[in-house]
Amino acid sequence: MVLSGANARAQTPPSPWTPETLHQLRQIQQTALQDDYAWQQAAHLTDNIGPRLTGSAQAAAAVEYLAGELRKLGFEVRLEKVMVPHWVRGEEHAELVSYPGQVRGTTQKIVVTALASLSNATPPEGITGEVVVVNNFDELAAMPREKIAGRIVVFNERFDHEMAAAGFALKAYEQAVAYREDGRVAAARQGAIAALVRSAGGAEFRLAHTGEAGYDPKLPGIPTSAITAEDAELLARLSAQGTVRLHLVLTPQLLPDVESYNVIADLKGSQRPEQVVVVSGHLDSWDLGTGALDDAAGVAVTMEAAQILKQLNLRPERTIRVVAWMAEEVGVFGGRAYAKLHAAEMGNHFAAIETDLGAGHPMGINVCCDEAMLKLLQPISEALHESGAGILRLSEDTGADIIPLKVAGVPTFSPLQDVRRYFDYHHTAADTLDKIDARELRENAAVVAVLAYALANSRTELPRKPRPVPDWLK
Amino acid sequence: MVLSGANARAQTPPSPWTPETLHQLRQIQQTALQDDYAWQQAAHLTDNIGPRLTGSAQAAAAVEYLAGELRKLGFEVRLEKVMVPHWVRGEEHAELVSYPGQVRGTTQKIVVTALASLSNATPPEGITGEVVVVNNFDELAAMPREKIAGRIVVFNERFDHEMAAAGFALKAYEQAVAYREDGRVAAARQGAIAALVRSAGGAEFRLAHTGEAGYDPKLPGIPTSAITAEDAELLARLSAQGTVRLHLVLTPQLLPDVESYNVIADLKGSQRPEQVVVVSGHLDSWDLGTGALDDAAGVAVTMEAAQILKQLNLRPERTIRVVAWMAEEVGVFGGRAYAKLHAAEMGNHFAAIETDLGAGHPMGINVCCDEAMLKLLQPISEALHESGAGILRLSEDTGADIIPLKVAGVPTFSPLQDVRRYFDYHHTAADTLDKIDARELRENAAVVAVLAYALANSRTELPRKPRPVPDWLK
Repeated sequence: MVLSGANARAQTPPSPWTPETLHQLRQIQQTALQDDYAWQQAAHLTDNIGPRLTGSAQAAAAVEYLAGELRKLGFEVRLEKVMVPHWVRGEEHAELVSYPGQVRGTTQKIVVTALASLSNATPPEGITGEVVVVNNFDELAAMPREKIAGRIVVFNERFDHEMAAAGFALKAYEQAVAYREDGRVAAARQGAIAALVRSAGGAEFRLAHTGEAGYDPKLPGIPTSAITAEDAELLARLSAQGTVRLHLVLTPQLLPDVESYNVIADLKGSQRPEQVVVVSGHLDSWDLGTGALDDAAGVAVTMEAAQILKQLNLRPERTIRVVAWMAEEVGVFGGRAYAKLHAAEMGNHFAAIETDLGAGHPMGINVCCDEAMLKLLQPISEALHESGAGILRLSEDTGADIIPLKVAGVPTFSPLQDVRRYFDYHHTAADTLDKIDARELRENAAVVAVLAYALANSRTELPRKPRPVPDWLK
Repeated sequence: MVLSGANARAQTPPSPWTPETLHQLRQIQQTALQDDYAWQQAAHLTDNIGPRLTGSAQAAAAVEYLAGELRKLGFEVRLEKVMVPHWVRGEEHAELVSYPGQVRGTTQKIVVTALASLSNATPPEGITGEVVVVNNFDELAAMPREKIAGRIVVFNERFDHEMAAAGFALKAYEQAVAYREDGRVAAARQGAIAALVRSAGGAEFRLAHTGEAGYDPKLPGIPTSAITAEDAELLARLSAQGTVRLHLVLTPQLLPDVESYNVIADLKGSQRPEQVVVVSGHLDSWDLGTGALDDAAGVAVTMEAAQILKQLNLRPERTIRVVAWMAEEVGVFGGRAYAKLHAAEMGNHFAAIETDLGAGHPMGINVCCDEAMLKLLQPISEALHESGAGILRLSEDTGADIIPLKVAGVPTFSPLQDVRRYFDYHHTAADTLDKIDARELRENAAVVAVLAYALANSRTELPRKPRPVPDWLK
């Protein structure tokens, strides 16, 4: 038996969008693909303001700048207070002071960069200790405590380049970053005096990747640093030959918390203004580079979405809420503060979008987390198909700042980006404006702007599915 | 008319090699492709000794180490004295102190690394000046002196990645390195107070490429530094928006000359011992990385060639002379001293080989500089064909240290290597052992060992063709 055409069509749910909205989506897309507002925003944030470490003067200036720009676009802007940590990098250097074959009177430099955490400084004069290299947690756990106690543990987990090149860069990163996050605590548990972690990233150009490291208040807060892939390998080779002793100076400080802000601007909905579609990126960055890919790009495409709706004079049916989150890097402080402040309005959060995986070509949209949405969103996929962004994929990777919304059942989204090179630059000194391709940035802006407007104008409700609460959010 | 086989063969010159030698070449090749002596040498020079800056304790240790290793192989070793400069890197940092959009109380870091030259230090407290960015020498020359005088000139010549990827990396490097070599003098001529030169290299990972900069005693010795590609672009963008002022601290010093050495070991020829085939690499390196590609690799394959002949108990007909040159990087001091000391014996230098373009897969041999040699060497090409190294190419790129021999008419050679990635690492902190592929290093050792033995046993004289003397050698 063959279904008649009419019957087949009858099984397709009615489109959530009117022909008028679908036409507007095309307009938005075409405008975004030609506009350079996103690029200008990314350039100002990175070149003129510079690194935007949480708690810093530049982070404060970025809040002020963004609020000003959104007001210029005609938005009402509010700053929602977030108390944030104020970690500052100090002096940081390391050198091998004795090792097999050492030339008398010389040392070798080890490139280090402190990981941000509580109590991770050495005394100003530094510490010196023998190095123990382990490839993974299991190797560490298998070693008797007396082999670790009083020594400096080096975690030499290799970033899986093949996995990253094959399109699973995020998975490769997750494997590696476990050591940045948990290495310090694991080493402290066995009595180590410091932990050095091979950089959780793909580039092998003597680059150290900074980031947050874990802390266990029941254990001593030992100094912890990233080291480059090259230096991790060197330490592994030399310590296989004999005793290696290293001198380490790290003098970061955790200053008193600072009042900072999420920057929020609403484009009020014409029909259901109480219902909100969040569009977002995070404003803070690490301090080694200028935080271009992470995450000036995400803020820039968010701003571009807002700008285009104003430029085209399009008023969405639901409210589109532009959010630039503060303090994502050091523990999602802005995202958590928002969810707390707006806890009573979670039911009115129709959807949330975040862009926080760089500015690589978007192939489509990550959709969290109900399969039924893939069918519902098919018309958006068709609209985005032309710019090569037609894939809809179920994924939990929709941005850290909106995880508190996601666990409350808000459907979340992000552009599905090409991230094969992202972890080459992420959290390093090389995360600078030149790493953003202007055309690809526009492609991302197109995806985000189309998606935001489509969600705001959907005639269909989206399925809501609360997600498990991660440990750090409990 | 068709030439008979016999007639056709009659036109081919007789092979310079006996069947026995050709058999030995295969033996040498097969042994080299399986031996890890070259790797061990490269590892010791880079991991254990470390950077080998001319005049340093590590450079002296490398001389001693190499002499010891060659003696262990059974060679008679002599050290030929070379007086060398002793430049030491000091403190080096730079930051933007004012620029458009600057956040009050903040600066932005510019990654700098001093270029080695005479009188290139700032006072200890540094200098501060306005930045003028030019893309090339013509732009600088077209500017009136008052636009340059008292300012800091930034040369923003871009490394041509497409040219490098297309196989012309050396040409791309030559275009870029002209600014490192001559930028300082050009800027000083127009009254600049410092010169910053975009790194002459392919990597864009916030890496500064060090190297030698020119000096004109008639002009002030202004401070000169390499900057990263990223920071050159940043300076170009910001200075297009308004005034940019930069603070620069560079405190390198040129200490009194030091006595150092070329390390020389002869494997005496059985038939014509007075005739010499030089096989070489240079022992000194820059100081940011550990000089693995530049040029521990070249020394290592040279040592491997010597080791294999000993291992196989092969005695060449001419003398094979292993040379590890000193002070190539800072002005080919070792190469020049050798040519001077051995000036009377140039006629007995049958050929010279140097490996100094890394450890990339060798596709064959660079041959300088007579076309007739390509036919003569065909049997070597056939022997090397199996390891993918069968190409014979006429080229002047046979290594800087043997240029003084080349200009005297000595035929010179080098492995024809894949250098597409070489200038990503060259002269940077990332030139470390992990950049050498062990298999490719063995392939290079095979080419060099086969070539050296073949030349030493050639029954045919090679055409000698003196080459033009470059300016720096006059």
